[in-house]
Amino acid sequence: MIVILKSNPDRDQLERLILWLQERGIIIHTSIGKSHTILGLVGDTSSLDVDLIAALDIVEDVKRIQEPYKKANRKFHPDDTVVKVGDTQVGGGTLTIMAGPCSVESEEQVVEIAKAVKASGATMLRGGAFKPRTSPYSFQGMGAEGLDLLKIARAETGLPIVSELMDISQIPLFEDVDVIQIGARNMQNFNLLKEVGKLNIPVMIKRGMSATYEEWLMSAEYVMASGNQNVILCERGVRTFETYTRNTLDLACIPVLRKLTHLPIIIDPSHATGKAALVPPLAVGAVATGADGLLIEVHNDPPHALCDGPQSLRPEAFDTLAKQMVATHQFMKTIGA
Amino acid sequence: MIVILKSNPDRDQLERLILWLQERGIIIHTSIGKSHTILGLVGDTSSLDVDLIAALDIVEDVKRIQEPYKKANRKFHPDDTVVKVGDTQVGGGTLTIMAGPCSVESEEQVVEIAKAVKASGATMLRGGAFKPRTSPYSFQGMGAEGLDLLKIARAETGLPIVSELMDISQIPLFEDVDVIQIGARNMQNFNLLKEVGKLNIPVMIKRGMSATYEEWLMSAEYVMASGNQNVILCERGVRTFETYTRNTLDLACIPVLRKLTHLPIIIDPSHATGKAALVPPLAVGAVATGADGLLIEVHNDPPHALCDGPQSLRPEAFDTLAKQMVATHQFMKTIGA
Amino acid sequence: MIVILKSNPDRDQLERLILWLQERGIIIHTSIGKSHTILGLVGDTSSLDVDLIAALDIVEDVKRIQEPYKKANRKFHPDDTVVKVGDTQVGGGTLTIMAGPCSVESEEQVVEIAKAVKASGATMLRGGAFKPRTSPYSFQGMGAEGLDLLKIARAETGLPIVSELMDISQIPLFEDVDVIQIGARNMQNFNLLKEVGKLNIPVMIKRGMSATYEEWLMSAEYVMASGNQNVILCERGVRTFETYTRNTLDLACIPVLRKLTHLPIIIDPSHATGKAALVPPLAVGAVATGADGLLIEVHNDPPHALCDGPQSLRPEAFDTLAKQMVATHQFMKTIGA
Amino acid sequence: MIVILKSNPDRDQLERLILWLQERGIIIHTSIGKSHTILGLVGDTSSLDVDLIAALDIVEDVKRIQEPYKKANRKFHPDDTVVKVGDTQVGGGTLTIMAGPCSVESEEQVVEIAKAVKASGATMLRGGAFKPRTSPYSFQGMGAEGLDLLKIARAETGLPIVSELMDISQIPLFEDVDVIQIGARNMQNFNLLKEVGKLNIPVMIKRGMSATYEEWLMSAEYVMASGNQNVILCERGVRTFETYTRNTLDLACIPVLRKLTHLPIIIDPSHATGKAALVPPLAVGAVATGADGLLIEVHNDPPHALCDGPQSLRPEAFDTLAKQMVATHQFMKTIGA
Repeated sequence: MIVILKSNPDRDQLERLILWLQERGIIIHTSIGKSHTILGLVGDTSSLDVDLIAALDIVEDVKRIQEPYKKANRKFHPDDTVVKVGDTQVGGGTLTIMAGPCSVESEEQVVEIAKAVKASGATMLRGGAFKPRTSPYSFQGMGAEGLDLLKIARAETGLPIVSELMDISQIPLFEDVDVIQIGARNMQNFNLLKEVGKLNIPVMIKRGMSATYEEWLMSAEYVMASGNQNVILCERGVRTFETYTRNTLDLACIPVLRKLTHLPIIIDPSHATGKAALVPPLAVGAVATGADGLLIEVHNDPPHALCDGPQSLRPEAFDTLAKQMVATHQFMKTIGA
Repeated sequence: MIVILKSNPDRDQLERLILWLQERGIIIHTSIGKSHTILGLVGDTSSLDVDLIAALDIVEDVKRIQEPYKKANRKFHPDDTVVKVGDTQVGGGTLTIMAGPCSVESEEQVVEIAKAVKASGATMLRGGAFKPRTSPYSFQGMGAEGLDLLKIARAETGLPIVSELMDISQIPLFEDVDVIQIGARNMQNFNLLKEVGKLNIPVMIKRGMSATYEEWLMSAEYVMASGNQNVILCERGVRTFETYTRNTLDLACIPVLRKLTHLPIIIDPSHATGKAALVPPLAVGAVATGADGLLIEVHNDPPHALCDGPQSLRPEAFDTLAKQMVATHQFMKTIGA
Repeated sequence: MIVILKSNPDRDQLERLILWLQERGIIIHTSIGKSHTILGLVGDTSSLDVDLIAALDIVEDVKRIQEPYKKANRKFHPDDTVVKVGDTQVGGGTLTIMAGPCSVESEEQVVEIAKAVKASGATMLRGGAFKPRTSPYSFQGMGAEGLDLLKIARAETGLPIVSELMDISQIPLFEDVDVIQIGARNMQNFNLLKEVGKLNIPVMIKRGMSATYEEWLMSAEYVMASGNQNVILCERGVRTFETYTRNTLDLACIPVLRKLTHLPIIIDPSHATGKAALVPPLAVGAVATGADGLLIEVHNDPPHALCDGPQSLRPEAFDTLAKQMVATHQFMKTIGA
Repeated sequence: MIVILKSNPDRDQLERLILWLQERGIIIHTSIGKSHTILGLVGDTSSLDVDLIAALDIVEDVKRIQEPYKKANRKFHPDDTVVKVGDTQVGGGTLTIMAGPCSVESEEQVVEIAKAVKASGATMLRGGAFKPRTSPYSFQGMGAEGLDLLKIARAETGLPIVSELMDISQIPLFEDVDVIQIGARNMQNFNLLKEVGKLNIPVMIKRGMSATYEEWLMSAEYVMASGNQNVILCERGVRTFETYTRNTLDLACIPVLRKLTHLPIIIDPSHATGKAALVPPLAVGAVATGADGLLIEVHNDPPHALCDGPQSLRPEAFDTLAKQMVATHQFMKTIGA
């Protein structure tokens, strides 16, 4: 970390700053220039608060050189993390396809979809039991019963299950779930991150609606710092001024995160766009860009289809897409992309 | 709610939609135009999901006419909500001044600041015991002990106390706190909102980092729908591309919320700007624009001041500001603004 | 267009509104509901200003049903526009590869790069002669001389040339340029759009830094309304809170624009990311998502490489990428994606 | 400027960088740390491109210490700029009130409004003759005739006139205008900025829709670097996710710009909010926060009021507001705010 001091800093304050840093085990290199003095801080600066130091009267600016995340950092963990889930894995060259309904509605629905997506090539079943809704008057999901139905579908198909956990109090219900999803709105629910960090279940963290890469990786760091190294990152679009799509899918995150972290990267084009017709081209594009996998909403088409998400593909459309994704994943290896 | 259908909508789908709406008690007015058919939905449409309907194959677009919030809506509750807190109140013409340290650090610190801000005119003491921090390696607050110190300061000064609650599991610790603050990152932690909605303690909801007015009011609605009508809104800046200030303070929220809701509005210029020098002009500006009160960080200046926030005012600066705010509040009444 | 009136609208104002609309040739369907009256406006509503009507005292809200753009609208022009440029074309199934240096620096530089990119498969040469720079003290481009050097490179290679026009006064200099580029900062320089709309040269419009799809298409509409139908759209990333990349590349624009408009779509990953290492995966991803072409910065590597853009690929890296893009483009046809 | 090198930088590249910097008159201080080497660049670094240097293979990061603007910088010009306009001035303790219609429509309209706003206390008349419109099919303003009508209103009232210039080709028409306004969409039309920089007429630069303070000040720098030091800054809101207001007014810009620059600051609440009812509280709030003046839309109320902006105040409402603003401006002096 580099601290740029204002010209003629107050001596007492400077001494207090230096003492305070030294108490934290930081070694300080001072470089005195014509107009500014610069302090180079060496040691473990990850617990120093940039904003606090930057705001001291004597400080002009502060610049981090090292990222504030360590366990999630590719620099210190050069090998890709491969997350084992049941008989399959996320990362390590596998193309993960998580598919299923936005909300679990009935045993019939979820089992039928599970069978269909498995036949098409999905490697995991996703389904929402607890649903974060902006309105208190909207359907909030089937809850514990929904999780039971997912487990029935798993028993029938062998597909591992992924479902969203919204609150610490729900943790006991998720002990037999294969991947715990942390939703975008909970990406900075730090207490929740600490608690799932104590579990022995993989955690998939969705990117917050307006989160930067660093903030997202710091959320992964919270889980990993509590002991759980099986973290998966899931991009689901960021908020922009465009309202035609629900959010703006950021595929650049794939090569960026590949460099910054060793954690696997899943792309969710269904939620990002909110429109089923946009899902196939972006899903194929994500595979070509190098994603480790996709999260895709699929519903069957019963008379009450109204309750399914507008961004859901029907099983036939998903079948075509799954084959295109697998073919594209193979093809990319042949051209070295 | 108005549903605009595509030209030549599929008949079966249209019938299914109409049936589905009628099952929910909605009355439908159909208006057939040259190129489009329009359905006017009458009844309680607050539980209908705009996105779901908008995404049906036969639907071109959907337009809400009524806001999705009811209990927080000025239309249905024309009178201003006045929240009683100890011997004081928020709203109803009172100028609320919540002041205190970002983090509670010691009994000496918090009692000294409490006495100082009371002498200057503060009406409540704020202080953080549980701190949401982006890094797991940063100081996370004193926790329960911090709450105890706040209560000591309350006993010494008579000032009601405001502190942030981060998680459902902390609720028992907050039973004797005067105002529970829900932080920006928890604005859409819906389970937490439901639980504080069951308490008999006023709740102050900070605006989410990128939240719209409607999303913010829907969070208030969650608390109110659970039974707790004593909700205070607190603007703390929204994220923009400007990085000179931490966030961009949105003072337009004052007249906007005054129209949309009956809930009182507090402005937090300390957190919004992240720079102490910007707090006084914006605090006075907020009073002149019509805010019900201010949330301002104040710290005393001990040798270890480094741990205090850069956006904190010292007691002397706060004293000057508090007097300016009170004078401005009085003056505005004289000119009818 | 649908106009939702407030309950009990002032009669005089309503009559004035209806008269004003009728004077503009609009036919009005009135539908009176329980709480709201709705006006359905039929006719050419593209010249009506939504904001103006929405702000009338008697109006609750206004909803466009039809897009405000006509000539750029797929609904009225279902066939893809194919823009002929020299012996090649943009759109219509061709993969366009525009490559070259950010700034033209010397004859040697631009000719060498032109030969290299042509050999690798580029179909056009791009190069900046006039450079929009945020600082008045930065190099502003070679100007007219730069255009001359591009023409020399064209003569040597046969590649059509693409270059940015910044101001109406520069138009005479661009009469022999093959494609005129309008930069992101000029996307809403309406006078400039009108003037290039009078030329018989294809115009490529870069998306504004924070522009929505509709705003972007309205800029295309300005050019087309002036007579020039040969418009190409170029996505170069939008501003988000992420600062690791210069902007956030929005590949969802490809399927969205394919639906909204008949104009061809070029993707610029170099400018969007600002980092050369991110260009190849995103360029291949853009081809897989269905882009009509790419705009890619390439520089050779002379001793003064410092002046080249950090987002530029070297010719060898471009050669590998160009082959991957062509292969991916072919492959996508085989899988029907 | 500080350049942080990667560990073990390539020696040849480092030498080339150092040579290139030295050729530009930069003196380099090298500070070798354990993991990183840091270059401190001393001299005029305003023409160095941060992005270019940051992207070199050997560079980890670059940090500016000095702002890239010089003439607009308070550090080098500590005294407030006071812009003389006719018999009045902008800055220097005066409260400037620019008022008038969004668009000039007729002699009768503009003269009547001019008389009314003068009587209420306005110090300048604003009115649009050339209007930037997102649709080519919308009314584009009266053009040169509109400017003539403004001059008639000036002759009748003595109020100096402010009007927007959209293009270099219009400059001859503006030679007798008192203040030239550069619109938000033209804030980075660098050629236009250079040309108005050659005039002897004050220039008011509106902030771009998503512009940072630094980008805005760099636009002022363009005008000043061309010779024209009479620059006024006008805040008109920035784009955020909130759509209830047209943009989000950033009043924090007042104390921020006061620190960064010596140029006067005008606030435009009419355009920022797009709603007349929000203008008075924000205008008074802006005065209390320390603005040098306001830009406010006012229209009279003829039968064809429909064409006036929804954000316009009627003369009576403006009269009340003008008196409140003047009183607030006086009051703030008495309390030292």
